[in-house]
Amino acid sequence: MTMDMTFLGTGSAYPSPHRGASALVLRTDGECWLFDCGEGTQTQLMKSQLRAGRITKVFVSHLHGDHLFGLPGLLCTVSLNTNPDPQQTLSCVEIYGPRGLRHFLRVTLGLTGSQLLFPYAVHELEPTTDQSPEEGHLSPEATAECGPLHPQEQPGRTIPLNVSNDCYHLFEDKKFVVKAFRLFHRIPSFGFCIQEQDRPGRLKTEVLRELGLKPGPLYGRLKAGEPVTLENGRVVEPSEVLEEAIPGRKVCILGDCSSVLGEGPLRLCRGADILVHEATLGNEHREKAVDHGHSTPDMAAAVARACCAQRLVLHHFSQRYKPCSLQKEGDEDHVSELKRQAEEALKDSGIEVTLAEDFLTLTIPLRR
Amino acid sequence: MTMDMTFLGTGSAYPSPHRGASALVLRTDGECWLFDCGEGTQTQLMKSQLRAGRITKVFVSHLHGDHLFGLPGLLCTVSLNTNPDPQQTLSCVEIYGPRGLRHFLRVTLGLTGSQLLFPYAVHELEPTTDQSPEEGHLSPEATAECGPLHPQEQPGRTIPLNVSNDCYHLFEDKKFVVKAFRLFHRIPSFGFCIQEQDRPGRLKTEVLRELGLKPGPLYGRLKAGEPVTLENGRVVEPSEVLEEAIPGRKVCILGDCSSVLGEGPLRLCRGADILVHEATLGNEHREKAVDHGHSTPDMAAAVARACCAQRLVLHHFSQRYKPCSLQKEGDEDHVSELKRQAEEALKDSGIEVTLAEDFLTLTIPLRR
Ligand SMILES: [Zn+2]
Ligand SMILES: [Zn+2]
Ligand SMILES: [Zn+2]
Ligand SMILES: [Zn+2]
Repeated sequence: MTMDMTFLGTGSAYPSPHRGASALVLRTDGECWLFDCGEGTQTQLMKSQLRAGRITKVFVSHLHGDHLFGLPGLLCTVSLNTNPDPQQTLSCVEIYGPRGLRHFLRVTLGLTGSQLLFPYAVHELEPTTDQSPEEGHLSPEATAECGPLHPQEQPGRTIPLNVSNDCYHLFEDKKFVVKAFRLFHRIPSFGFCIQEQDRPGRLKTEVLRELGLKPGPLYGRLKAGEPVTLENGRVVEPSEVLEEAIPGRKVCILGDCSSVLGEGPLRLCRGADILVHEATLGNEHREKAVDHGHSTPDMAAAVARACCAQRLVLHHFSQRYKPCSLQKEGDEDHVSELKRQAEEALKDSGIEVTLAEDFLTLTIPLRR
Repeated sequence: MTMDMTFLGTGSAYPSPHRGASALVLRTDGECWLFDCGEGTQTQLMKSQLRAGRITKVFVSHLHGDHLFGLPGLLCTVSLNTNPDPQQTLSCVEIYGPRGLRHFLRVTLGLTGSQLLFPYAVHELEPTTDQSPEEGHLSPEATAECGPLHPQEQPGRTIPLNVSNDCYHLFEDKKFVVKAFRLFHRIPSFGFCIQEQDRPGRLKTEVLRELGLKPGPLYGRLKAGEPVTLENGRVVEPSEVLEEAIPGRKVCILGDCSSVLGEGPLRLCRGADILVHEATLGNEHREKAVDHGHSTPDMAAAVARACCAQRLVLHHFSQRYKPCSLQKEGDEDHVSELKRQAEEALKDSGIEVTLAEDFLTLTIPLRR
């Protein structure tokens, strides 16, 4: 299964002509999952090689406008480009994000008279009170859901923190387990861990031969985890004939934060193939960064080290940092300096550092 | 007083890399009034010569997303670029638009924890039921204003239709009278008429000389409309010494529509220096255009002719029409054909036709 990640916006606070507001797409076998959707994301999508119509799930890390203001428009435009095929029921777009997101979409789509050709559901994560300063808590009235569901809205779940493992269980299917975890920011923010299911190990062909099993459909059943009964009545368990499972890939995408809450997230992200972390400002602006609920390359590197990630990808740069391609000699703030700072903090760790730029695509190869 | 108009987005339905969503700025002496604010308007503003911080008033023609989804982000970004000068109270940004706009901003700014450095007020126009098909009416619950004002929100007015002159009185100051009027669209839509106050006529210098009045401060008082008493007791009325007033300029900007409601708007827009009208699709797609609440060049021309405008500016083009600069020989849909159609409809009328393009600036010269 191919897996890649494309950054559609790597700027913080607002979109600018040289850096879009936060958005990235994780693509597996043509299906697109969108992480955050700042204003202008739909236009960035059109400029990319991705197809907006392939978006099946959306994950919103937190409700700041630079991560959210593009979502109503994106849904409308995806719908405009959807072929209304009466023969085919369009599948539901699943949207995950903090409490308040459901109300946000209901009001923005509702007041603008936006009808979608597909259903959507919003699954809300319940933040805990320690995810932000008190002024960042949403009042209960702010999310008191006045009014009925949007005509295309399907009821969504409300997902509380699982205190036993310190994370939120979003969903699990044959290919993936997706969880979320808590971050500290000016308002409650979340990170997402996308864990690919392990693939069955290779078949031990010698053992199979000894058992008298020839290549054919039975091999497939064993590989799929089913026991097989031989003609002589002997039951062959898959574990007898399969090598160790090949671990699935793990991608962790963190929202804006000045810290990760608790130990659960580090356990969850342990050994991630890719850890995407914000680095809004350089180390020399640490105090300002933390004041605003943000991180520096040093802080991002510490998280990558704590969870033994293989690769740290930095994004969400202050708009003062121009993209490398536009950087000039005399410029005061060089985004490459952010990379250098993270590399410095990670030297001898073996963790690779990558600077995200708008439209950068990273492929995530299969393990082994 | 200088007066110009810059188009920031001329595309319909959604923003694309070659046409922004609806937005235009009318600028007078450096003050900017924004008409509609589709997604991406703040980025278009950054690419233009205009300064977002100069926006003092916003007018929203209707609540469709391609005219509105950029507004919360624009307000946030203007605020980020505002200098928080404790010595100076920042003036209130006045926002005018249909009922529902107040709730839209309260919810989008509120849920995203957006604090602005300036106050804002939303003045809502009450639509009438004949401005759209029934499915376009907002239910009363949709705008039942749950929750308190946003911390930076000041109470706004609710402006009903003035049935005597068939329009909405928005405000009047020394420089302008601004009114709105009703349009028919899929949801209630409005047009805006910006009427500059007449300027006093030239002083009749011969009459002044006969009266024994020499150039000086008294000339200024007369020109400002004040009577002046001479040493001999004679009272000079301004009307005695001023030529006829020079009429102010008139700019009319219509929202999406398939028709103008009633005769009031035509009277109001009579003789407009500039009439900005949508032309979403070419004449050959008239049925489809009307079905979607939109106009063709023929329909826009008819409105311009009915109110004897001096110049008709077309905008809000379907995204199928590429800008002239990107148009290629083989392209099926030529935006220049829309201009030709309007010109055809207006031949012998003396009304000039202009195609708007993103970043086009039109200056509106003083009359006479
Ligand atoms: Zn952010
Ligand atoms: Zn944030
Ligand atoms: Zn429109
Ligand atoms: Zn519209």
